[in-house]
Amino acid sequence: MVPICLLQSQNLDAIVVSTLIQIRYYTGFKGSNALLLISDKGNILFTDPRYTTQASQESNCPVSIVNGPLFKALASKLKSLKAKRIGFEDTKISYTLYRGLTELGELVPLGDAIEKPRWIKTPQEITAIRASVKLNSMALDQAMKRFKVGMKEMDLAAEIDHQMRKLGAEGCAFDTIVASGPHSALPHAHPRNERIEAGSYLLIDMGACLNGYMSDMTRTFGVASVPRKAIRIYKAVLEAQLAAIDAVRPGKLAGQVHAAAVKVLKGHGLDQYFIHSTGHGLGLEIHEAPRLGKKDKTPLESGMAITIEPGVYEAGFGGVRIEDTVLVTEKGVEVLPETQKGWTIVG
Amino acid sequence: MVPICLLQSQNLDAIVVSTLIQIRYYTGFKGSNALLLISDKGNILFTDPRYTTQASQESNCPVSIVNGPLFKALASKLKSLKAKRIGFEDTKISYTLYRGLTELGELVPLGDAIEKPRWIKTPQEITAIRASVKLNSMALDQAMKRFKVGMKEMDLAAEIDHQMRKLGAEGCAFDTIVASGPHSALPHAHPRNERIEAGSYLLIDMGACLNGYMSDMTRTFGVASVPRKAIRIYKAVLEAQLAAIDAVRPGKLAGQVHAAAVKVLKGHGLDQYFIHSTGHGLGLEIHEAPRLGKKDKTPLESGMAITIEPGVYEAGFGGVRIEDTVLVTEKGVEVLPETQKGWTIVG
Repeated sequence: MVPICLLQSQNLDAIVVSTLIQIRYYTGFKGSNALLLISDKGNILFTDPRYTTQASQESNCPVSIVNGPLFKALASKLKSLKAKRIGFEDTKISYTLYRGLTELGELVPLGDAIEKPRWIKTPQEITAIRASVKLNSMALDQAMKRFKVGMKEMDLAAEIDHQMRKLGAEGCAFDTIVASGPHSALPHAHPRNERIEAGSYLLIDMGACLNGYMSDMTRTFGVASVPRKAIRIYKAVLEAQLAAIDAVRPGKLAGQVHAAAVKVLKGHGLDQYFIHSTGHGLGLEIHEAPRLGKKDKTPLESGMAITIEPGVYEAGFGGVRIEDTVLVTEKGVEVLPETQKGWTIVG
Repeated sequence: MVPICLLQSQNLDAIVVSTLIQIRYYTGFKGSNALLLISDKGNILFTDPRYTTQASQESNCPVSIVNGPLFKALASKLKSLKAKRIGFEDTKISYTLYRGLTELGELVPLGDAIEKPRWIKTPQEITAIRASVKLNSMALDQAMKRFKVGMKEMDLAAEIDHQMRKLGAEGCAFDTIVASGPHSALPHAHPRNERIEAGSYLLIDMGACLNGYMSDMTRTFGVASVPRKAIRIYKAVLEAQLAAIDAVRPGKLAGQVHAAAVKVLKGHGLDQYFIHSTGHGLGLEIHEAPRLGKKDKTPLESGMAITIEPGVYEAGFGGVRIEDTVLVTEKGVEVLPETQKGWTIVG
């Protein structure tokens, strides 16, 4: 386990892991209140009495059930271990916990060292992500069978989420976006109590959470008849998305994938409407490293699961985004969703 | 606005608000990436280009759209303001942001002063919470019409969530808990792919998010015929819940409400099975102050919205929790949900 290696390489007596998602990754425990202490005497998971049974079922390490603040129990354990050099998650820890730890020993910031192993997915994780992606695609198919022009955005979003759950998802990876007409120009639009009318875009951004693992996909449709401009923009975004996917392979920098999408959009005079990064890692969290933005110099590695999602957003007109979850493989890239993405009219 | 008063009372040149939910409360902005700078020159909301349109629609203060890290833009504004004493949310801020701020001036920890106004709900907020509670109750009624013995926990949870959405909720306030049989003894159980069988409890803990405001309710039913012990425990928990509600009024300490519930359960020899606090505030977040735990000395005030939710959990047998969202009023207390809570057999 990576944190054990960190103890040695950084000459640490202990590591305090305070982020729930890392605690889940390293121990299996899914509760909402926990601290993890790593030392060469073994790991200890601290949680509260609500989780006595659950922690004993889920955790792969001994559990300490604490009445009151977990930090007190952690601090007393650190003292009994006579820990002097203590590693901590400086980019994630709360200031309050940090301040508490400063009184206990010399603190060693670990940057993203605790998180980094999560960037490269294990075969089991890849299986879980595949299943989540498949479920997500099926949910979109099922929901779109019920779509009619004039349906409300909120109702279509509710239908999508219900289909995910019926297919076995624990829930959504994030609030499902259903945005039509000019509202689709808001990249993070919330579904409204408004009807989806003919003549514009219908943008759907959705992800499932299945066995803890996320999926993320966006499709943009035309509703009944749309102006030619809408089709032209769509095709440019699709070309940009395919170019970005084509740029994915081990050793490429995250920023180079973004650049591939930007280049295509620039060729169409649309790059000024592409206002976010091209994608992000995903796994136990919907947003993980790397970020596929202009400045991200992270080299892609086989085993990463990332999204590729360029978009063009024209205020007052509408927005197009096309997004797939893809795997970085030894040979290059594998696009996971089978959901088609050629220009499609619905309704 | 409270932060403005803080500038004066604490002799601050600026306040940095870094928690998204506080930023939403003070500015109206609902995006996922923002910082708020408060000074006597006016407030500025910093966010990224994805939110250009949304921020201009939602924010009640000027918006600065930033390419790249928001902190850089905030820092440069703080420098141009020549801010020397800077207030910050020490209990919420990330260590990384804190470290960045230390280079800019003298940092003044504000404890919960930024958050505190949210504990007392405005009339508009109370209206929003009432609506959320009402929707939540209706969703339970609708879902239980479809309940049958042998239904799977996951399917009932999906049905509940779908009813919430059909009634207009943005989503759930938290992952809906549907737990039956011995599994109900886990206070934070996840719905399983298991059938709800006759002879034990069915515990449902659910909350809606409507216009940003949360509700929270738990009901525990008997499934078909259950042993007498199950009914006896239920009645003890209900008695404890009613006693705790009865203890709610302005001036009472949060811990005293908890003590009222504990006292009743002790009388029934069940207090050792009550392993969490009696409730919590709620509003824009599902868990807000105060915590109604043993040590919480917060005096209740008119305008607080809190949950009252004692429970008894016996490993191997099952768990009962009964929870309502209530308002602290000038006269005492108002229980919001109309959903009945006498012992009820379903299926």
